[in-house]
Amino acid sequence: MHYLEGILEGNITVLSKAITLLESTKIENNKLAEEIIELCLPFSGNSLRIGVTGVPGVGKSTFIESFGSYLIKEHDKKIAVLAIDPSSQKSGGSILGDKTRMNKLSVDDKAFIRPSPSSGALGGVAKATRETIILCEAAGFDIILIETVGVGQSETDVNSMVDFFLLLMLAGAGDELQGIKRGIMEMADVLIINKADSEDATKVKLAKQNYKNALHLFPPNSNGWIPKVESCSALNDIGIQKVWNIVSKHYELTISNGSFQKNRKDQARFWLNETISDAVKTMFYQNEKIITLLPKIEADVINGKISPFKAANLLLEEFKK
Amino acid sequence: MHYLEGILEGNITVLSKAITLLESTKIENNKLAEEIIELCLPFSGNSLRIGVTGVPGVGKSTFIESFGSYLIKEHDKKIAVLAIDPSSQKSGGSILGDKTRMNKLSVDDKAFIRPSPSSGALGGVAKATRETIILCEAAGFDIILIETVGVGQSETDVNSMVDFFLLLMLAGAGDELQGIKRGIMEMADVLIINKADSEDATKVKLAKQNYKNALHLFPPNSNGWIPKVESCSALNDIGIQKVWNIVSKHYELTISNGSFQKNRKDQARFWLNETISDAVKTMFYQNEKIITLLPKIEADVINGKISPFKAANLLLEEFKK
Repeated sequence: MHYLEGILEGNITVLSKAITLLESTKIENNKLAEEIIELCLPFSGNSLRIGVTGVPGVGKSTFIESFGSYLIKEHDKKIAVLAIDPSSQKSGGSILGDKTRMNKLSVDDKAFIRPSPSSGALGGVAKATRETIILCEAAGFDIILIETVGVGQSETDVNSMVDFFLLLMLAGAGDELQGIKRGIMEMADVLIINKADSEDATKVKLAKQNYKNALHLFPPNSNGWIPKVESCSALNDIGIQKVWNIVSKHYELTISNGSFQKNRKDQARFWLNETISDAVKTMFYQNEKIITLLPKIEADVINGKISPFKAANLLLEEFKK
Repeated sequence: MHYLEGILEGNITVLSKAITLLESTKIENNKLAEEIIELCLPFSGNSLRIGVTGVPGVGKSTFIESFGSYLIKEHDKKIAVLAIDPSSQKSGGSILGDKTRMNKLSVDDKAFIRPSPSSGALGGVAKATRETIILCEAAGFDIILIETVGVGQSETDVNSMVDFFLLLMLAGAGDELQGIKRGIMEMADVLIINKADSEDATKVKLAKQNYKNALHLFPPNSNGWIPKVESCSALNDIGIQKVWNIVSKHYELTISNGSFQKNRKDQARFWLNETISDAVKTMFYQNEKIITLLPKIEADVINGKISPFKAANLLLEEFKK
């Protein structure tokens, strides 16, 4: 099959075409994409998958540009950059603008930058991204960087498909987490204060200490990793090596204690269950009788006229008929 | 109907019998319970529902004893104490031991203490607890305290059925949150350091400051409430009034800005969706074809032989047949 051959050769044009197929809203394209993905599956799994998140303005593109270029130059890695932005429109993706800002990476033939799939993709953005990871790995990319905007549901999705989760922050005045969704900080394996050179050193030091104290209050990760706090200036390529050292240490620890492999297996099980769960719920809510009955019953529940459990039972009985 | 009349009169014996019916594993008992609940529904909703959590040893029973007695004595409230412990066995509940430790409350006719429902209850412990709340409110209880052990999934359930979430802590040595599940601290409306009199004042002050700093790093609640940190000694009834003042302020704020009512409606919608979601998933996983096929396919997914999405599709096609 020419798609498989092209991808295994690392042909970017073929890889891009295959990704376009899996992002397509057309069922026949999806069927072909599914075939390609299953063929690529035995050649996948060998990359390090890193989630990168942070609010707009924190410098995610600049960080990825600097970090990716460092890994290509110093460690001879091949880098794929994907993005998840559930709000992105059909005609383009959030990273499209970023791509032009990633001057070095976008022209480097060891880097592959792919905008966020359209939110219209069958099965959703998370599914498309997870499948894209498989294709990129089969194409020989060593590091997959998955970018999210840090304000929505998508971080939970990303956390369920990466080996390492990196949170970019700024040294602010106490309310540093403003805008970051509750719970995201708890997912972070490392918290990086970016733009550290544009703030005075005392402020950065204080922010680092504050974050360390806060992370210290969280219970330990089950994999034995203690989340780290570091600072860098991506714009001036300062501190990037320290970030990579942290990622490498996390990799060594989790490989040696088996939690890396366990996490990957848990993630596969998670996506199986998620997909099933989404599909059966869709089956229910798209049932014609349910569509007719739901608005009135939901209103009754909200107004306390019927208990949620009784209401659910009524709907379920109709569905089973 | 004599159940409804008894409950509305505040008859504890009838209330207890009705709760036993809804906790039953027998379908006919559940049908009767459902009828009682729907009749009680118009008389429910007027209590303040407070979640109380913390690791074993933090003094939850002592706190509830002190807090409940204070509310009865100083504010003429009627108090119901419920417990959620998913690990509790059929023959009894976790609070059963606690009940004997709540010496004052257990003999006070303005208090009602109910152990955790058995994990065998149809629909699960969370459903049983939420229905018990309705019955207790119809019986005229003003404050419902719902206790959890602070180490499992149950806190998320409780958070979805209470108006206020109270987290009990100890002043420890830096790793205060040891044992508390990730994410629970983010739910807390107030964090109370208990046993404050058995530690030296400096240590308590330091712990309070540490928690304040940590909470400060979280983004604000959408209802405008800023989580508080306080200390008390439940054993010696010290600081209990301060806790009540915080609860009252939270109540005033959320009532005045409408988030109290909005939260209740969101919770009703949440339980409707949760019940439907659980039921349709159960329908899928209890399907005979799925039971036969799942183990092999799940193993293939975990070992990377098939993608989770393809596997889910295979199973769903079988289910639809």
